[in-house]
Amino acid sequence: MVPASFDIASLHAAYRAGLDPVRVVEAAFARIAAADDPGIFISLAEKSSALAAAAALGPFDPAAKPLWGIPFAVKDNIDVAGLPTTAACPAYLYQPAESAAAVQRLVEAGAIPIGKTNLDQFATGLVGVRTPYPVPRNPFDAGIIPGGSSSGSAVAVARGLVSFALGTDTAGSGRVPAGLNNLVGLKPSLGTVPVHGVVPACKSLDCVSVFALTVADAWVAYAVMAGADPRDPWSKPAPAGAPGAVPPGLRIGVPDAAGRRFDGDGLSERAFDGLVAGDLAAFGGRVRTVDLTPLFEVANLLYGGAWVAERYQAIRGFFEASPEALHPVTRHIIGGATALSAADAFAGLYRLRELAAASEALWRDIDVLVVPTLPRPYRLAELEADPIGPNTQLGVYTNFVNLLNLCALAVPGRFREDGFPAGVTLIAPAGKDALLASIGARLQAASGTPLGATGLPQPPLPDRPAAALPGEVEIVVVGAHLSGMALNHELTAPGGRFLRQARTAASYRLYALAGAPPRRPGLVRCGAGEGHAIAVEVWALPAEGFGRFVAAVPAPLAIGTVLLEDGAAAKGFLCETAATAGAEDISAHGGWRAFVETRAA
Amino acid sequence: MVPASFDIASLHAAYRAGLDPVRVVEAAFARIAAADDPGIFISLAEKSSALAAAAALGPFDPAAKPLWGIPFAVKDNIDVAGLPTTAACPAYLYQPAESAAAVQRLVEAGAIPIGKTNLDQFATGLVGVRTPYPVPRNPFDAGIIPGGSSSGSAVAVARGLVSFALGTDTAGSGRVPAGLNNLVGLKPSLGTVPVHGVVPACKSLDCVSVFALTVADAWVAYAVMAGADPRDPWSKPAPAGAPGAVPPGLRIGVPDAAGRRFDGDGLSERAFDGLVAGDLAAFGGRVRTVDLTPLFEVANLLYGGAWVAERYQAIRGFFEASPEALHPVTRHIIGGATALSAADAFAGLYRLRELAAASEALWRDIDVLVVPTLPRPYRLAELEADPIGPNTQLGVYTNFVNLLNLCALAVPGRFREDGFPAGVTLIAPAGKDALLASIGARLQAASGTPLGATGLPQPPLPDRPAAALPGEVEIVVVGAHLSGMALNHELTAPGGRFLRQARTAASYRLYALAGAPPRRPGLVRCGAGEGHAIAVEVWALPAEGFGRFVAAVPAPLAIGTVLLEDGAAAKGFLCETAATAGAEDISAHGGWRAFVETRAA
Repeated sequence: MVPASFDIASLHAAYRAGLDPVRVVEAAFARIAAADDPGIFISLAEKSSALAAAAALGPFDPAAKPLWGIPFAVKDNIDVAGLPTTAACPAYLYQPAESAAAVQRLVEAGAIPIGKTNLDQFATGLVGVRTPYPVPRNPFDAGIIPGGSSSGSAVAVARGLVSFALGTDTAGSGRVPAGLNNLVGLKPSLGTVPVHGVVPACKSLDCVSVFALTVADAWVAYAVMAGADPRDPWSKPAPAGAPGAVPPGLRIGVPDAAGRRFDGDGLSERAFDGLVAGDLAAFGGRVRTVDLTPLFEVANLLYGGAWVAERYQAIRGFFEASPEALHPVTRHIIGGATALSAADAFAGLYRLRELAAASEALWRDIDVLVVPTLPRPYRLAELEADPIGPNTQLGVYTNFVNLLNLCALAVPGRFREDGFPAGVTLIAPAGKDALLASIGARLQAASGTPLGATGLPQPPLPDRPAAALPGEVEIVVVGAHLSGMALNHELTAPGGRFLRQARTAASYRLYALAGAPPRRPGLVRCGAGEGHAIAVEVWALPAEGFGRFVAAVPAPLAIGTVLLEDGAAAKGFLCETAATAGAEDISAHGGWRAFVETRAA
Repeated sequence: MVPASFDIASLHAAYRAGLDPVRVVEAAFARIAAADDPGIFISLAEKSSALAAAAALGPFDPAAKPLWGIPFAVKDNIDVAGLPTTAACPAYLYQPAESAAAVQRLVEAGAIPIGKTNLDQFATGLVGVRTPYPVPRNPFDAGIIPGGSSSGSAVAVARGLVSFALGTDTAGSGRVPAGLNNLVGLKPSLGTVPVHGVVPACKSLDCVSVFALTVADAWVAYAVMAGADPRDPWSKPAPAGAPGAVPPGLRIGVPDAAGRRFDGDGLSERAFDGLVAGDLAAFGGRVRTVDLTPLFEVANLLYGGAWVAERYQAIRGFFEASPEALHPVTRHIIGGATALSAADAFAGLYRLRELAAASEALWRDIDVLVVPTLPRPYRLAELEADPIGPNTQLGVYTNFVNLLNLCALAVPGRFREDGFPAGVTLIAPAGKDALLASIGARLQAASGTPLGATGLPQPPLPDRPAAALPGEVEIVVVGAHLSGMALNHELTAPGGRFLRQARTAASYRLYALAGAPPRRPGLVRCGAGEGHAIAVEVWALPAEGFGRFVAAVPAPLAIGTVLLEDGAAAKGFLCETAATAGAEDISAHGGWRAFVETRAA
């Protein structure tokens, strides 16, 4: 039976039980027809072709094809072979010879493209109303904008018509619509998903993004798409790592008083404060307020600075030949670039560099920034009255992200008191995508909200083995490298991730080494039956980072093999026996953290 | 006695023997007077102040102050407190309130600024004649240009007036004058020397560079200046590492037939070929020809593309207010920026990104690129006839370097048959500065050329211990990983290289561990006076290879810190004490190889 929810977990469970993917594609087309919203899709795949693709998938094999039988939609500024690309500008329409690199990878992983979705023309906007096609209806309140620019992709997923949809994100187009439609919106680190076959907005900032019902689903699609493509000079290898446990002692930043922007909306404000005080604090991390001033200044550069010239350059020939073919608001915004000189462009790049340097201090104090995805929802009527102002407001928490090469993940939070969605966005430096997904998955689960606008419950969180991935090395830490302790940053800085709490086999002794404070622990293996099980943490480090880490370990510590209580073994900290002369045997405390807390007490 | 050569080795030897640095400063001023070239300096330090600075240095302490008593000159687009900055434009003159960050660091390291040197106005040019001041005379042939833009700095060092001089390098201004004056020109990786207090040319590309008589001298000045400065948002930490041995098996690229550019000059061509066939091949590295097409295309972007707008932006207010105050050629070049739009600027950045991606393949095949520093010397008369054309030719091997964030080192080679200098430039990706210096020092020594234009011989190369390069980790091996033994391939396969034989400090015991053959050794540190010095080998492994190597080390072995007989310490094999129960103490053999040979006999 076709499951009510198209989330990947539900579909794959059904496929495992024998469901024919042809039935799912049929259901997708039926749901699109029943949705009765002509604004969502600009074009649909030939139903016969989509059914044939489903029939040709072969046996269900999610290990080889992680998106086996998964229907998806594509924003209409991304090429899909066989369908026209319009960027929501009918005069711009062209027939691509091949699919975009990202789409091609999804198809090779078993996903089935269903159609091309509506957008703010040329991906310029955060509102979803700057289109000559009908505006997609917000499924929670038809008087509210759907959000943009990836309006159709967000609404298609929220309504359960497809499992996930591709967006693009330059200023927030992959996050604002997620926030307005109770979705996950994954905006990866710049360059990790190739943009070959995507109509550029700002080439130096564009990302392919994913809208999905769950964080797990968004991650699967992202992981399939990530990796360098020789046809895209901006593309780069995908960062290592996958979502796992949330590291203990996580340092979470939220806006300080001056950085709270709700445009006067108490409902949105209370929803955000509730999430911070409730679900976020429940992580056991340390929540602190941070100054967002440099980020807001960066955000202002995006349209106030020279970057609008990238949008002009992207469609320069078309714009100069056919200005009348553009949506009037889009033409007004992009046309502003003609007043800017090359010297202005470099002046903007210099200002960005200054602000980027100023913002770096932020990431020494926190691991992740949590902000409202948007200040408040805006009504269609407000945009009719003022097509620019609300758009600017909507970008306050999104515009700075790509300019600073951060990664971001919009996730659903508890709804506002009026029942409208109120998500948050997690933000971290480039390469921390997996960390955001780790946090986001727990946060979404904690919110307990239904999937998108379907009213259906979330599937249970997948069990993930807390183990090193290929290219990573597991390391057992004993002392100041434990989560929240003084040297933990030596693990996180090179991309390390927390795997699990553990205890050693009962054949070790733990010493507090002699010497000036801060005292250091030393773990020494002893004869069987003479030792204790010592509390440790297991982390994963990329191989190069592990190499540098080991190279910096000072005597008398060494990296050897530590046997764990559960029979596993991993590289980890040991101490030379010679150094335990004069040291205090603290094995009875059971671990360094317990010993330190005793001392502090 | 004041030494004839102001190279740092000679001066420090004289200081060690009791020379008063006041005498050296007096000599510098006397040499400047005797040089009889009013084009070299735009302004000189107050002699009384410079003498007072020398007198105030305190006792000779090169460890604390590596530039103790070293006179240097500064290009007049870099601020020195107490002297005006002109950028070779008298109407632009200002009195800086403080020294540039780089100058400040040199002064704190004991160096003494002597004066500000002439340049192509606003550092725009590679010729040295675009100045309202007299043109510095090329000390090898007064009919040849001095090279620019750092013309005065190069001539001052070549004539032995100062020990080293600062230049700036955006397009090659730190390398072309080195090539025309038989000097070392060190153009570091972007951002490693802060540019706070430097008049910008192209802010995104500007580097502070060093002219010196030897590679060792250039490195000392660079190492003192390197490191982030909070006032410079482009600055970054200095890459780790220092020059050392040239790695065996070095992969050296030279231009293929299409990339040979000598502008018809057989003398320069034969000099380059002689160096490649002789001194370069003598390294034992593999020399191969490579296609420089993408690099030449990047070089064309610098003036053909949008970057001239950076030069405009740098002096925008001044240019717009007083265009007549500029040198006519400079005004013509920089004024070209007014025709460029912001969209043009981004189009240029996109093209650069494409070419940068295309050029990355080069660095998979070679470790270092060796090119002529310039195609051929040009005569003053040629520049009078055509102020632009020869300048363009001079940048063919330099213009692409900063745009691609490469580092470069111009070094003297054997002279041309007519006795004019003919150096080469070593080029590598950012961060490889120390590798270039390692190679450059040997290449300069092999050339046997005198220092600059002084006619004085090179000092002997400093003895450097064979040590790990940046990005490598040293590892001490004890047993089957020794050269020629069964597991040595685990070091060589990931790119490890042998550094040296060594012995541990006399505080270790070596065991043949119990167990089935092949038996394994275990090195354990013991109390002082209880141990032996054990024969070991020191190898260098790339950090990632080191990480994988450590991850594969089986219990009871571990990688910790091994103390060596010579007082050094490095990562190396240790054994858990618990595993020595039942093992045979073989310390008296003095090493694993000796023990194995005893058994085999």
